[in-house]
Amino acid sequence: MATRLRVGVIGIDHNHIYGMLNGLRNAGAECVGWATGPETPEKLCQVFRESYPDTPQKSAQALLEDDSIGLILSAAVNSDRSGIAIAAMRHGKDVLVDKPGCTTQTQLAEIKQAVADTGRRWTVCFSERLDVDCVTLADRLITEGRIGKVVQTVGLGPHRRNSHLRPDWFWDRNRYGGILTDICAHQFDQFLHFTGSTEARVVSAHIGNVANPDRPDFQDFGEVLLEGNGGRGYARVDWLTPDGLPTWGDGRMTILGTEGYLELRKYIDISGRPGTDHVFLADRSGVEHFDARGAGKPFFSRLISDRENGTETAMRQAHAFLATELALQAQALAEGNL
Amino acid sequence: MATRLRVGVIGIDHNHIYGMLNGLRNAGAECVGWATGPETPEKLCQVFRESYPDTPQKSAQALLEDDSIGLILSAAVNSDRSGIAIAAMRHGKDVLVDKPGCTTQTQLAEIKQAVADTGRRWTVCFSERLDVDCVTLADRLITEGRIGKVVQTVGLGPHRRNSHLRPDWFWDRNRYGGILTDICAHQFDQFLHFTGSTEARVVSAHIGNVANPDRPDFQDFGEVLLEGNGGRGYARVDWLTPDGLPTWGDGRMTILGTEGYLELRKYIDISGRPGTDHVFLADRSGVEHFDARGAGKPFFSRLISDRENGTETAMRQAHAFLATELALQAQALAEGNL
Repeated sequence: MATRLRVGVIGIDHNHIYGMLNGLRNAGAECVGWATGPETPEKLCQVFRESYPDTPQKSAQALLEDDSIGLILSAAVNSDRSGIAIAAMRHGKDVLVDKPGCTTQTQLAEIKQAVADTGRRWTVCFSERLDVDCVTLADRLITEGRIGKVVQTVGLGPHRRNSHLRPDWFWDRNRYGGILTDICAHQFDQFLHFTGSTEARVVSAHIGNVANPDRPDFQDFGEVLLEGNGGRGYARVDWLTPDGLPTWGDGRMTILGTEGYLELRKYIDISGRPGTDHVFLADRSGVEHFDARGAGKPFFSRLISDRENGTETAMRQAHAFLATELALQAQALAEGNL
Repeated sequence: MATRLRVGVIGIDHNHIYGMLNGLRNAGAECVGWATGPETPEKLCQVFRESYPDTPQKSAQALLEDDSIGLILSAAVNSDRSGIAIAAMRHGKDVLVDKPGCTTQTQLAEIKQAVADTGRRWTVCFSERLDVDCVTLADRLITEGRIGKVVQTVGLGPHRRNSHLRPDWFWDRNRYGGILTDICAHQFDQFLHFTGSTEARVVSAHIGNVANPDRPDFQDFGEVLLEGNGGRGYARVDWLTPDGLPTWGDGRMTILGTEGYLELRKYIDISGRPGTDHVFLADRSGVEHFDARGAGKPFFSRLISDRENGTETAMRQAHAFLATELALQAQALAEGNL
């Protein structure tokens, strides 16, 4: 029997760390310690401590030098993630990093170099796909051929701004990376995944500030048009979720196939059925609603299994690179720097 | 009291003529005669005769020369509509034409010239907005300020192909005009309307054939990205409605505002509530579903009233021109002719 995977956490600035760590723990991994950066608010440390009282806080260096650790997780501030990931790989560890995996083309080049030099793996946890039950069900329906060949995706990714809860880096373009790099990262991932594209380009990209005149540098709206060798994609993201919505965002994914389509209402079926993870299908024989709760999140056990077996079932390295590359290209294009 | 508006019909090749004529009759107009082209199948004439047994069939020329007629309606073959419209205007009549109002830039220029020369009005019946109750309710909610300022629209316009029922011209690019000119016409109209844009440009446009390899010239997929002086828009149209959907298309319109959003599920709430005309609202105070059936279609009575009062409440002439211009530009861009 394989040894239990030991993981370490470096960076807890985004609460995605809980989805990442819980996913891996549920899949059998053991967390042997956690560390954070100098800026992380004590409040966040306290919540983490209370969530995992048996996991000791350590220095990042101690975790990097612990040879029993096979995988480092990080949800540090966006712009700090690549440094942590590269250090981890150069210490012989694989990496699972919150999205965005990095915020600049230079960082991405350095990450690619570190992967090439070390043979380690750099995986990005695109939680809006990998930590969502209804995507698992959608994958199954697509594999069964229910909608024919996928030809296009339309992703809507609204988010609640929650200004009063946000740290300084949330408002700093260079630290969060811009809206297309940051919350749109999920959309590039889903587009590539559902269309099965291994090559893709950004056709058009746009950012805007439509509702936050008091923060002129903030990007509260973004959209991209994509073309891949497996299909096309459009995505819109924003920070405009109204206060009356009972969750943080009405995340939707419409997957158009040659013989039917799927609509995922991930977090809410607005003024409809209760709960999360709604999948709607129309195909040649009818329409159907699926409650996908409990469909599972196989990403985490696949990630562990890939380490043991040398396989690439959780996420191809090339996919993590391409999704990130598209995000950085779109951001640059929208900002007029491409 | 104003005299009852007398209308004539020239061209019944698309069944949109029924929505147009019924809308005007319900608003008080009287149809004094109908004519069709030489190619119109006898089957269509028979259905029209049975629908309006008291309305005499006449020659197009007789209708054009009937001075008692104030408005000519046409749902002739797409590429034939401009000729009919121009003849009607040059005979002193206003025109209400099915979408697309024309299929080439030359036709549009000729129409504009006829409007300028005659002072008559050329209105396009974009039925996916003007003949839909839930749009009327959406307009009211937007006017009440429920979603703040509209910043973007996302329109999905899938249609059922129904190959076995289609006439030859349906498959002829030059006669139907291409998918962006034809079924996407509705989307340009809705984008301009909901964002309140009076100037706009096509940012990107694409057409494809993804599911009809036996008809290589057919366009079964199209998408456009739009930018206007009142907001942005994305639209996708296709001929891929699966047979299992209980209606011809799951037409959706998502209207994003600075303080909330609306989703219109026009013809079906897939695997949800029964009936048509569903409006979903999320704003600062909550989420809400509206059954918009019965909200009305004020376009038709406004069109009549505009003729009487010299107003432009049904559709500004500039709007009909701009929506058509965008469609033709998008089609040319997608076909590599721009």
